[in-house]
Amino acid sequence: MRITVCLTDNNRPEPWVEGLRAELPQAEVEAWTPGAALADHAVVWAPPQAFLDEQQRLRGLFNIGAGVDALLKLRLPPHTRIVRLDDAGMSVQMAEYVCHALIRHFREFDAYEADARQGVWSYRRPRARRDFAVGVMGLGVLGERVGKAIAQFEFPVRGWSRSPKQIDGIQCFDGAQGLDAFLAASRVLVCLLPLTTETRGILRAGTLGRLNGGRPGGYLINVARGAHLVEDDLIPLLDAGQLAGATLDVFASEPLAPAHPFWRHPKITVTPHASARTQREESVAQIAAKIRALEAGADFSALAGVVDGQRGY
Amino acid sequence: MRITVCLTDNNRPEPWVEGLRAELPQAEVEAWTPGAALADHAVVWAPPQAFLDEQQRLRGLFNIGAGVDALLKLRLPPHTRIVRLDDAGMSVQMAEYVCHALIRHFREFDAYEADARQGVWSYRRPRARRDFAVGVMGLGVLGERVGKAIAQFEFPVRGWSRSPKQIDGIQCFDGAQGLDAFLAASRVLVCLLPLTTETRGILRAGTLGRLNGGRPGGYLINVARGAHLVEDDLIPLLDAGQLAGATLDVFASEPLAPAHPFWRHPKITVTPHASARTQREESVAQIAAKIRALEAGADFSALAGVVDGQRGY
Ligand SMILES: NC(=O)c1ccc[n+]([C@@H]2O[C@H](COP(=O)([O-])OP(=O)(O)OC[C@H]3O[C@@H](n4cnc5c(N)ncnc54)[C@H](OP(=O)(O)O)[C@@H]3O)[C@@H](O)[C@H]2O)c1
Ligand SMILES: NC(=O)c1ccc[n+]([C@@H]2O[C@H](COP(=O)([O-])OP(=O)(O)OC[C@H]3O[C@@H](n4cnc5c(N)ncnc54)[C@H](OP(=O)(O)O)[C@@H]3O)[C@@H](O)[C@H]2O)c1
Repeated sequence: MRITVCLTDNNRPEPWVEGLRAELPQAEVEAWTPGAALADHAVVWAPPQAFLDEQQRLRGLFNIGAGVDALLKLRLPPHTRIVRLDDAGMSVQMAEYVCHALIRHFREFDAYEADARQGVWSYRRPRARRDFAVGVMGLGVLGERVGKAIAQFEFPVRGWSRSPKQIDGIQCFDGAQGLDAFLAASRVLVCLLPLTTETRGILRAGTLGRLNGGRPGGYLINVARGAHLVEDDLIPLLDAGQLAGATLDVFASEPLAPAHPFWRHPKITVTPHASARTQREESVAQIAAKIRALEAGADFSALAGVVDGQRGY
Repeated sequence: MRITVCLTDNNRPEPWVEGLRAELPQAEVEAWTPGAALADHAVVWAPPQAFLDEQQRLRGLFNIGAGVDALLKLRLPPHTRIVRLDDAGMSVQMAEYVCHALIRHFREFDAYEADARQGVWSYRRPRARRDFAVGVMGLGVLGERVGKAIAQFEFPVRGWSRSPKQIDGIQCFDGAQGLDAFLAASRVLVCLLPLTTETRGILRAGTLGRLNGGRPGGYLINVARGAHLVEDDLIPLLDAGQLAGATLDVFASEPLAPAHPFWRHPKITVTPHASARTQREESVAQIAAKIRALEAGADFSALAGVVDGQRGY
């Protein structure tokens, strides 16, 4: 069996090649170069179209991230199935990131720090957590873990997914028909959706303005994809006070341009797509286990994280 | 039955009086004034000695905080027992506060924010959570909840208490003889001890320098009492790099003086004793339930949060 590794965007292939060789000693694992022998499986990040045009024998295309919106724009070989990472150490990071942003907002730690820089011992009236219901868009591998982590801090938690769900501690809504009620019942909105034709631009004036029954004071945490947000809609909502703030980890164009107004807006916290990094060791182990299962005769339908091209995730 | 309310430090007694009247309609509840009739129970915050000298009939002295170090310095009437708050909405706030501080340090969000202020899209190599074991000093009502919240984010968690404990997800140490091993096995130290003669000054060069097996890079979160920390020892440890930082909510003298060096030290985050505020509604309900039990004939030993003056907490 032959495995090829094709990574772009400053991801060095060597440690992945070594990790896969250690996990799959019977396989031939190489970093891809143009004209290389045809492989059975590929481990990729943002591969060029030329790679897929050549590698016509691929069965598994293993993405080293959870989101596959970029991969789905490419033409795949006829028998290739895309497999995304299934957690692999990302959900705990997402839970950390989102809980940090939520607590920071709810507890007004930015304001305390501003006071501290002036040496001011301030008193702020505590806010009631029942007034800060959190809505998680997307209840997949990441969204469910994040929702449960938030529930542990006793915030009311709502969730929204495509198919109906029942999750302890989360009031679940689903489908296009459930979106309005979900938004009305949420004050802080966390986006953990995949980017698809249905979800692109879902964070826009018309939806963000409906948070918390349309009352001012909503808060946005976007950790999914930049294109979920209509960027031009955000600053007017913040400046009008309809939204109290936003924490953004992803952007329509990355890296965010140095002159982009998000960097310095006082109500926006920007992080550089750092909310959940791929953990190489866990990811290599997960991908190797899936390749072993396939080679032992398992069908793709038996694997977690196989992408449905029709659905878009 | 008569209940008196004696609060200082900007705590208005009126809402407590009203809350207790609503919960205990058969009781006479008044805010204390010098010379008032003798009460059966008192609800207090930092009462003056004159109050206790007068109120010689008191059975229950209900403190509207969890720490009773200040109360224990006073001379009590002969039959008075001190009852502290038992959670009453504080543990969730402590879990929030400590998790926020821990995640902020571990994920380097301060550094990301400094970059963001310059419009810099930075890459930081993720740190491994197995290298950031968290040690919680004090495994009482607050410490246990905090330890469990941290464990949810998959950090190794250690705990230290006076008596031996077994808690899922927490490696427990106890007693003076267990302190060294506990410190060596912890990199981030969270103090949630009561202030007693045994614990005063426990955060000092000799103990803080032993964190993480004596290697540099420890981190301190003090949310218990200012006097747990030998304040003069902290800045030298930070400046030498032995400690990477500290988040402090409590201080030897509060409010922290405007000129105190902690305010502006780049490795210290100061908050104004805001980590866990008393929740009036929950506290009134808890105290009223305990008074009801006592009036129905229960013994103090049946109540949670009864203070052992000998132990000091
Ligand atoms: N910022 C980062 O560093 C980072 C890192 C990792 C991932 N991500 C992003 O996070 C996304 C989620 O990852 P995941 O592993 O949790 O994905 P997942 O397991 O596939 O979950 C996706 C969730 O979104 C729901 N959903 C999809 N389309 C929907 C629609 N039209 N309406 C309502 N709900 C819809 C799904 O509903 P069903 O349950 O009904 O299918 C599912 O609950 C990824 O796609 C990626 O874009 C970002
Ligand atoms: N910053 C704030 O806003 C704030 C708010 C609330 C409380 N606090 C502080 O937090 C403290 C803890 O509150 P709590 O409700 O969790 O108290 P608690 O339930 O009485 O727990 C105290 C814990 O400390 C341990 N302990 C006491 N003395 C010790 C010693 N000499 N060596 C080792 N362990 C010792 C106890 O051990 P055992 O279990 O063996 O008895 C117990 O686990 C309070 O006393 C107060 O000072 C601060």
